[in-house]
Amino acid sequence: MTTAVTRREHDLLGDRDIPADAYWGVHTLRASENFPITGTSLATYPHLITALAAVKEAAARANEELGLLAPHKAAAIAAACREIREQGRLRDQFIVDVIQGGAGTSTNMNANEVIANRALEILGHAKGEYTHLNPNDDVNLSQSTNDAYPTAVRVATILAVRELLASMTVLRNAFADKATEFHDVLKMGRTQLQDAVPMTLGQEFSTYAVMLEEDQSRLAEAVVLMEEINLGATAIGTGLNAPVGYAEAARRHLAELTGLPLVTAANLIEATQDCGAFVQLSGVLKRIAVKLSKTCNDLRLLSSGPRAGLNEIDLPAVQAGSSIMPGKVNPVIPEVVNQVAFEVIGNDMTITMAAEAGQLQLNAFEPIILHSLSKSIVHLGAACRTLADKCVAGITANADVTRAMVQNSIGLVTALNPYIGYLAATEIAKEALASGRGVAELVLEKGLLPPERLRDILRPEQLAGVKPALA
Amino acid sequence: MTTAVTRREHDLLGDRDIPADAYWGVHTLRASENFPITGTSLATYPHLITALAAVKEAAARANEELGLLAPHKAAAIAAACREIREQGRLRDQFIVDVIQGGAGTSTNMNANEVIANRALEILGHAKGEYTHLNPNDDVNLSQSTNDAYPTAVRVATILAVRELLASMTVLRNAFADKATEFHDVLKMGRTQLQDAVPMTLGQEFSTYAVMLEEDQSRLAEAVVLMEEINLGATAIGTGLNAPVGYAEAARRHLAELTGLPLVTAANLIEATQDCGAFVQLSGVLKRIAVKLSKTCNDLRLLSSGPRAGLNEIDLPAVQAGSSIMPGKVNPVIPEVVNQVAFEVIGNDMTITMAAEAGQLQLNAFEPIILHSLSKSIVHLGAACRTLADKCVAGITANADVTRAMVQNSIGLVTALNPYIGYLAATEIAKEALASGRGVAELVLEKGLLPPERLRDILRPEQLAGVKPALA
Amino acid sequence: MTTAVTRREHDLLGDRDIPADAYWGVHTLRASENFPITGTSLATYPHLITALAAVKEAAARANEELGLLAPHKAAAIAAACREIREQGRLRDQFIVDVIQGGAGTSTNMNANEVIANRALEILGHAKGEYTHLNPNDDVNLSQSTNDAYPTAVRVATILAVRELLASMTVLRNAFADKATEFHDVLKMGRTQLQDAVPMTLGQEFSTYAVMLEEDQSRLAEAVVLMEEINLGATAIGTGLNAPVGYAEAARRHLAELTGLPLVTAANLIEATQDCGAFVQLSGVLKRIAVKLSKTCNDLRLLSSGPRAGLNEIDLPAVQAGSSIMPGKVNPVIPEVVNQVAFEVIGNDMTITMAAEAGQLQLNAFEPIILHSLSKSIVHLGAACRTLADKCVAGITANADVTRAMVQNSIGLVTALNPYIGYLAATEIAKEALASGRGVAELVLEKGLLPPERLRDILRPEQLAGVKPALA
Amino acid sequence: MTTAVTRREHDLLGDRDIPADAYWGVHTLRASENFPITGTSLATYPHLITALAAVKEAAARANEELGLLAPHKAAAIAAACREIREQGRLRDQFIVDVIQGGAGTSTNMNANEVIANRALEILGHAKGEYTHLNPNDDVNLSQSTNDAYPTAVRVATILAVRELLASMTVLRNAFADKATEFHDVLKMGRTQLQDAVPMTLGQEFSTYAVMLEEDQSRLAEAVVLMEEINLGATAIGTGLNAPVGYAEAARRHLAELTGLPLVTAANLIEATQDCGAFVQLSGVLKRIAVKLSKTCNDLRLLSSGPRAGLNEIDLPAVQAGSSIMPGKVNPVIPEVVNQVAFEVIGNDMTITMAAEAGQLQLNAFEPIILHSLSKSIVHLGAACRTLADKCVAGITANADVTRAMVQNSIGLVTALNPYIGYLAATEIAKEALASGRGVAELVLEKGLLPPERLRDILRPEQLAGVKPALA
Repeated sequence: MTTAVTRREHDLLGDRDIPADAYWGVHTLRASENFPITGTSLATYPHLITALAAVKEAAARANEELGLLAPHKAAAIAAACREIREQGRLRDQFIVDVIQGGAGTSTNMNANEVIANRALEILGHAKGEYTHLNPNDDVNLSQSTNDAYPTAVRVATILAVRELLASMTVLRNAFADKATEFHDVLKMGRTQLQDAVPMTLGQEFSTYAVMLEEDQSRLAEAVVLMEEINLGATAIGTGLNAPVGYAEAARRHLAELTGLPLVTAANLIEATQDCGAFVQLSGVLKRIAVKLSKTCNDLRLLSSGPRAGLNEIDLPAVQAGSSIMPGKVNPVIPEVVNQVAFEVIGNDMTITMAAEAGQLQLNAFEPIILHSLSKSIVHLGAACRTLADKCVAGITANADVTRAMVQNSIGLVTALNPYIGYLAATEIAKEALASGRGVAELVLEKGLLPPERLRDILRPEQLAGVKPALA
Repeated sequence: MTTAVTRREHDLLGDRDIPADAYWGVHTLRASENFPITGTSLATYPHLITALAAVKEAAARANEELGLLAPHKAAAIAAACREIREQGRLRDQFIVDVIQGGAGTSTNMNANEVIANRALEILGHAKGEYTHLNPNDDVNLSQSTNDAYPTAVRVATILAVRELLASMTVLRNAFADKATEFHDVLKMGRTQLQDAVPMTLGQEFSTYAVMLEEDQSRLAEAVVLMEEINLGATAIGTGLNAPVGYAEAARRHLAELTGLPLVTAANLIEATQDCGAFVQLSGVLKRIAVKLSKTCNDLRLLSSGPRAGLNEIDLPAVQAGSSIMPGKVNPVIPEVVNQVAFEVIGNDMTITMAAEAGQLQLNAFEPIILHSLSKSIVHLGAACRTLADKCVAGITANADVTRAMVQNSIGLVTALNPYIGYLAATEIAKEALASGRGVAELVLEKGLLPPERLRDILRPEQLAGVKPALA
Repeated sequence: MTTAVTRREHDLLGDRDIPADAYWGVHTLRASENFPITGTSLATYPHLITALAAVKEAAARANEELGLLAPHKAAAIAAACREIREQGRLRDQFIVDVIQGGAGTSTNMNANEVIANRALEILGHAKGEYTHLNPNDDVNLSQSTNDAYPTAVRVATILAVRELLASMTVLRNAFADKATEFHDVLKMGRTQLQDAVPMTLGQEFSTYAVMLEEDQSRLAEAVVLMEEINLGATAIGTGLNAPVGYAEAARRHLAELTGLPLVTAANLIEATQDCGAFVQLSGVLKRIAVKLSKTCNDLRLLSSGPRAGLNEIDLPAVQAGSSIMPGKVNPVIPEVVNQVAFEVIGNDMTITMAAEAGQLQLNAFEPIILHSLSKSIVHLGAACRTLADKCVAGITANADVTRAMVQNSIGLVTALNPYIGYLAATEIAKEALASGRGVAELVLEKGLLPPERLRDILRPEQLAGVKPALA
Repeated sequence: MTTAVTRREHDLLGDRDIPADAYWGVHTLRASENFPITGTSLATYPHLITALAAVKEAAARANEELGLLAPHKAAAIAAACREIREQGRLRDQFIVDVIQGGAGTSTNMNANEVIANRALEILGHAKGEYTHLNPNDDVNLSQSTNDAYPTAVRVATILAVRELLASMTVLRNAFADKATEFHDVLKMGRTQLQDAVPMTLGQEFSTYAVMLEEDQSRLAEAVVLMEEINLGATAIGTGLNAPVGYAEAARRHLAELTGLPLVTAANLIEATQDCGAFVQLSGVLKRIAVKLSKTCNDLRLLSSGPRAGLNEIDLPAVQAGSSIMPGKVNPVIPEVVNQVAFEVIGNDMTITMAAEAGQLQLNAFEPIILHSLSKSIVHLGAACRTLADKCVAGITANADVTRAMVQNSIGLVTALNPYIGYLAATEIAKEALASGRGVAELVLEKGLLPPERLRDILRPEQLAGVKPALA
């Protein structure tokens, strides 16, 4: 006696054979054939799968509570969802391509089928025996893709953003530590790449920490928008076929399961079609990318050299830089972060296009929004941790080099402005530049200030504004 | 005896003749020659000029308070600034191109020179007699372009955003009024452009009002970031040459003059180089643009026809649509709003590039950020008012058409799901589509539901979810 | 006696243990640790691996020819490269992340190591016995990453674009077939979504075929730019350490191996830093995306309904559309193509940022350019084939519906312009719109044209311009 | 007796009073009221006005030729058009906003009215006496906005691009001159901002000239696409109401009038809706912008300092750099070019969005495409000339600085690879970096090469690859 290798399932297009061991069913099969785009399946997004399982469990509980779903069915669905959420099981059963048509219907159907078949097993039935528990009528009960899917996307996004925030903290701390370490390293500040006035390397690194902290605040604000869900909206937000009380019950259960302070949107029709919160969040991710890229540009610039560059800092060597140039070490870690930033900026454009393309009661392009948003969040997180661990933590300062540049600088003349006047200062600057001589030397030679006064004015701490001027 | 037609001014590059009646001076002249890019001068941005005058007046008062500037000079500067701010005078003297190099230095210099020369006149001197009052040493005292300019840009942006918020309210109210007016107009909701389930036109228009309200909230949040200024930072944020107490005094005066709750950034070095707040604000403007564009796409779609389109609503005719097709009226107002949205999305990209390009202690590209941001804000405001006044206010509904589509719709079958089951409902839907017959008709013919029950289930208000289901 | 599970390799950072069965070595190991960004390895890009193998084989042959490489070494390298190119072997050994720092060095090193170790085996040595054949000194001989890598990227891109062109032909033919099939289907043309003048559905579908044909021409032009390579440039284009004659010999061998008409850039220093050709190609891919998206928007619009939409065509059903709305079928295939288009447009932005960020003699961000470009090309190809096979081929026309719209249309009045004048035509149009009556009916009623003349003017073929007017 | 200050005109919305001296009429008035967006009128685009006049003249001639337009009318229209084209008259009469709805109808109507009223005057009639010559029936005869407007946009674009190509030549020559001037200036090449191998400053500047030359080739190719016009298409490309022979006659006259090799599109329906050529052209403009921005980044980097930067070149001082830092000179010209580049990249996004938004038989958003394209072309041209004249022409090299960096460089070690081996070379590099000593010094000390041999290998010309290696 042999075991059947397939089972037969039916949908409005007819019959299809499904591998007997597959938890997914006919709708998933068709979708997997319809969208052969990237070769990357939904399994790449664990948070989304977790969130879908939480939504389905919350819906089952609400439906049971309202008397719409038999307790044994609800229990089986909940058990299947918990396996997926808590044990990470069945992820490989989410086989639909990440880029897909249908406004998320195929993702929702994939989840419905996997959960139904696992629940069937839990109830002692074979996979595919949908008369006992049905993907559509039971797992999807009181739901439409148009409320279940966006809700799952939002929950998944919150989970992913939390990880990003943690990675940003790691990077922020790395910069803050260096700001402390480089507290006394005097160097020239530069505006428009031209020598400006003195500062410390610690001040410079502190700005990177502050930028990240502000970005974290913006990100934390933006992710709050994700807490607004539309469960109970069903097809277009009118709640057709969802019983009274369902929206609130489902929200409550989902909030409990996830521990998130979820709220139901006040206008469900608006909430069902609106992608504004994704545009907003992506805009903030772009902001983070922009500043991370600027920071990496700075790190690459400050570490340029070693002989024919600024050579103010050394980045730790993490790999050989060149197959032809012996001893060359390149800033590969900042470079990879730059590239992630460019990707995030591109993703934001994709999300913008997709959000603008929504029509009437629905935006059919949420799958590419999810795909782009997920990549941005995950890659930014990886970039932050990599930058912290492989680069920032090991940066060293060439304090002798930076101090010499200050002493040699014409920019010192700015500090003399209040004492010798802008006009005289300009003449000193021009002469220093032309002759190659130092500012202090010229001021003394011309007798514009007594030596002690000059020394006092040019005290490093004073110049860098590290300590307030005494009087 | 004739009056001289020019006066001579001097800078580090040498001497130049300036038209005697010009309030601007040699630095402005050089900048106007250096940047012959757009042919559009700073005079196009009245809020920026107002804000620059406010910053210069605040600085003068702070400098006087700290004993750095003689009272008569401070008074003359303040008087000149008030003329500019309150009477809109001298705007034509801001002649530098809106796209300019130099991180805003030329804009700052243009302001310094115009204010100095007007102040000189007020003091009874001739323009150009800078020994009495100097653009640099007096008007720009304790400042650098790098703090004065960004502060002015932020103040100007707040003023412009306030106008945009007001214009958005006009549009929001127009949509809300129509939502009320169309409260009873039953129509088919659509997802993915396919017939879905019934709703009312009032519900549809309410979503546009809600979207705008949410966008206003996001915009109001984002503009708060503009209230953080860096006056007192001077060149790179170390405050070199700005006396103790200056930053706070200047902030206090500027807050008084503008009525804005300005705060000084905690880390002035970071604040001087960081363009994150502009990226954030532009991201929100892009969000508004995306949704406004989606809304206009909907309006154009709903009013398509009159015979070969959806024909659910009529937009008011505001001009003849075609030189060749008699009687054709086109949705020109939504179309112009779409185009403004596309421009805003492009501007966001420009701002993103410019923000990313900042290096070390300064972003030299703030002029193009200001330029792009100003266009986005001003054009969006014009678009909102135009859409409200020329289009939304005059929209009428073709209620007979929309009701007939509901009655004729296969989507009605969804409402029967809970009563006849998904499977039977699918069969009805297939037969209706194939035969061209109505759903209700088929249900009755097959005896699936008694007539009264069917009528009750298909009550319009129930379908549209306008009132809660009774049982 | 047991076999060692690791071997030890050395680089400038010290020693590392490498799994004994790995063909990659220490440089690859470090890179795989340094760039934990996407979790997707180079193995996803078969064309790149093929191209790298071709470049390495060409270099080995050139080096042998010039007496720099021993014949047995060259033969072993060539054999290893052929296995990779022709048999698709060892792809899983390309383990570095697709997003990586280092300007492609890690990809180049990964190739050098895999090829060296396979060549060692072929020569009868163990993996890692680099004294017999060295990844750097032999496989990478006369090369730098900065010429070998861009050359491979260009060759890989040409191969990928050829597949895209073939997929575009499939889609173009599908549209052209439908244009023929729908040759006689009269329908209303629409401008600005308003009824304009009559045309045929065949004309409409022919435009999609023509657009694709033009896009193919542009793509074919742009990919020619990829044929210009910089082999022989070494580090910065000065050719340091590459012997006289090497550039030409390597180019000749690579052209032979790939069958491509490759040419060496005239200015190698420029060619080594310039990413213009990638920006150009991506711009053309964006153009294709824009028009494919517009085409899919049209298909979704024309198939809207079935009852409350335009309902001019039916797209084939490929999956159930909704879990809640029975019988609903959605345009999921055009929707997935729209989303690929949005992704391509986002990728273009990423490529733009990366290209702009090049500095001095090199662009370090070519890996993200390759990554984005590859996705755009591969996904567009998949989208074209999917659209052709799953959608366009099965489209059917609702000819009765479209003909009725023409007969009922006010737009017919345009054709009467030359006979009754624009003024009278406008009056007819206004009355038809107000009364709901037909244009022809009103013209006859008012006696503006005799019946036969009117019928003649309104002949469908004439209106649609399918055949030239007879008189 | 007094002269009337207004005249009355009529359209389908009713009567309006028009200022008696206005050449524009009621359609223009309504449009100017309907689109109060930017405050910038069509008068800003002289090429567009010239092109519109050429199109109208060509149409009049064709209509006359075909017997549709009385010779005296055609002559008057042609005379009016020539005044506009050749003498630049009446530009101030083009008052509609540059951002406008209606697919260009208002621009076309503005042209029709201005030309009609001027022609009326030429014929001895008063403005507004349209019974003698009508804007619609005569000036617009055989045309629709949908063919006349895109044709004018294309002609205008060709004219503008020609100016841009000329400006690019100016900049290219400036770089080429400097490449010659700096032929002997030895310097370090840099990859990834790290010291690589030697080259000359002349080589570096030659790359900028080569880049521009390639960009010019791409631009010249792309503009050829603009030569394909759709005159004769009328409303949707079916040519309804355009007589047989008109399309060819109008094309022939327009080609004669403009001197351009215009061709009529093979598929007029496709040509009428397709914006691909604009996307292509904008993509090439973006390519130019990307590389111009990279070039300016390089110039700013190479001129960084003077003391704490690379200091390899000096840019000419064109204005004082700072109001607070005496003697500071900033790279303001490259900075303004960077900003134009960012604007062009943003404009490309706007054009992409607008092109994608076309629907069915028309793209209604061509006005914003024209607007964005015009700005990109004009501003890029201004940027090229400004960069050439105000910056590149005056650049000087600090040859002593750059030569010292070469002599001091560790990168020299690469040249020793073939003589002492990669391994020994790496050891030398490490020791040089750790000790601060020179590569040559260490090689000699260790007796790795005889002095003469070493001197020969390290000859500057050899290192920079300027002359082929002798042996």
